[in-house]
Amino acid sequence: MKIEEVKNEIRDILDFPQKGIVFRDLTTAFKNPEALTAIADALKAKYEGLGVTKVVGIESRGFIGGSMLARDINAGFVPVRKPGKLPADTISKSYSKEYGVDTIEIHRDAIEEGDVVVLHDDLLATGGTMAAAYELVKSMNPKKIYINFIVELSELNGRAAFPADVEVESLIVY
Amino acid sequence: MKIEEVKNEIRDILDFPQKGIVFRDLTTAFKNPEALTAIADALKAKYEGLGVTKVVGIESRGFIGGSMLARDINAGFVPVRKPGKLPADTISKSYSKEYGVDTIEIHRDAIEEGDVVVLHDDLLATGGTMAAAYELVKSMNPKKIYINFIVELSELNGRAAFPADVEVESLIVY
Repeated sequence: MKIEEVKNEIRDILDFPQKGIVFRDLTTAFKNPEALTAIADALKAKYEGLGVTKVVGIESRGFIGGSMLARDINAGFVPVRKPGKLPADTISKSYSKEYGVDTIEIHRDAIEEGDVVVLHDDLLATGGTMAAAYELVKSMNPKKIYINFIVELSELNGRAAFPADVEVESLIVY
Repeated sequence: MKIEEVKNEIRDILDFPQKGIVFRDLTTAFKNPEALTAIADALKAKYEGLGVTKVVGIESRGFIGGSMLARDINAGFVPVRKPGKLPADTISKSYSKEYGVDTIEIHRDAIEEGDVVVLHDDLLATGGTMAAAYELVKSMNPKKIYINFIVELSELNGRAAFPADVEVESLIVY
């Protein structure tokens, strides 16, 4: 399956998680071996050969593509999680959402200064969570940070949440 | 790295998530490319050639090994999640924990009768969550179900939570 065809395997759910939202449900693509292969192959093709040492996946759907990518390009996998989930010393970042504030954490020893990092999540909407993850990782001074999504909802202009000089890639754009 | 050596990359955290517990922290193994490769290679070696069609990963650490395995053996990946996270029609199962009750969900259309399924989580402790996931998947009548963990804490005898005729495998035993 070509990556363009994976769009046909993504299910639209009306009014989830709230009224007026069309949720792009990737679970129907992940459960299809041909679509999962197409996603993993496309991620690998984008980032192999760039010297990537760590793939950071955002809890919890970002763990799926993130760990496949890490395995495929011989990088390590690092989780960004909700507060209280990571057992060792963490740094955290809070950010505003439509209703209230969310916080994410990463282990303080997860990233080193020589690292080349891909930050990965399944879907780019407004970009708030990924912008917080970017700031967290940036504060650990890696050599380079890439940002990646499987799906991008371009009408929400989430790319505006990241610095203009960061390479942001998505596999499938709505 | 051999899978036996991955144990050296797992970090022990005292008193997490509560006093008296030694938490086996796999994040230090996942972030090490050689250990991540050893884990993924060992999972692949256990399940390739068995006709596995779906790997079910339990939220959220089970998404890491589960998605790598699915990709490596050309299976689909299916998430088991906390309530309210899956957007389409689900079936759910509640189970007792030390303090109170937890519930997990799976999409009703995630498993079909012809499927050969590997249920995967990172760690086997008392087995309560995995036993609930097993019952959920079993109720969908797949052809075969295997159960897999990266780490097993054998002193807790979590295997007793599963039917005796189910093949339960773990890569690393404490």
